Amino acid sequence: MDRIPILKFGNALLVTIQVDMHDRLATALEEDLTSRIVSNNARGVLIDISALEVVDSFIGRMLDNIAAVSRILDADTVVVGMRPAVAITLVELGLSLTGVKTALNVERGMAMIHDRLAGSEADDADDED
Amino acid sequence: MDRIPILKFGNALLVTIQVDMHDRLATALEEDLTSRIVSNNARGVLIDISALEVVDSFIGRMLDNIAAVSRILDADTVVVGMRPAVAITLVELGLSLTGVKTALNVERGMAMIHDRLAGSEADDADDED
Repeated sequence: MDRIPILKFGNALLVTIQVDMHDRLATALEEDLTSRIVSNNARGVLIDISALEVVDSFIGRMLDNIAAVSRILDADTVVVGMRPAVAITLVELGLSLTGVKTALNVERGMAMIHDRLAGSEADDADDED
Repeated sequence: MDRIPILKFGNALLVTIQVDMHDRLATALEEDLTSRIVSNNARGVLIDISALEVVDSFIGRMLDNIAAVSRILDADTVVVGMRPAVAITLVELGLSLTGVKTALNVERGMAMIHDRLAGSEADDADDED
């Protein structure tokens, strides 16, 4: 496994993390996502981590990096499907995933991206008043 | 990794195959999908195999099994993201994946499921004439 597949859903990209991440895989994922955001004109990135039993500082940093790069490219990053035990461990470890939005599942994450897009368009309309 | 995550999108379920399948993982996936079709009232199953460089007879049989069980539960199975080399190898091996529908990517697969749902509703309406 040298690449994690990125699926396109409308104006969002979906990634499901299922395998143990290592340096090269994480770097490849960040690069692939960045180029796909640009080539697909994507406004959101959904990262499903429901398969992960452990989220350590390495994964946390990877998620932060992806969110930071996506934000610069004007795309929101939403992490979905986090297990309750993972959330507890993250807080205990002091890894609060600042800069990364979360949603309970992929449908809510998709709705969050659409809401924010609709909201920013409404803001644009307000500015014109 | 003991389970492959199943994501819900409206009335369809999405599975991304990223890891090497072995007996127990395939059985677990079939069981999980079957129970999720019932519990989520799903009408379609999308299986993304874009990460697979090889589809052997074991994977082919697993896809056939999933499609057969799903059909009995009134859900369509669409395999998406097959690599060109995989398609060539499947034909050369005589594994034609009968009973499994295919689509180029997950968006087209989702559209295929929606089209068939709309079509079956139209047929129902015709029957009433």
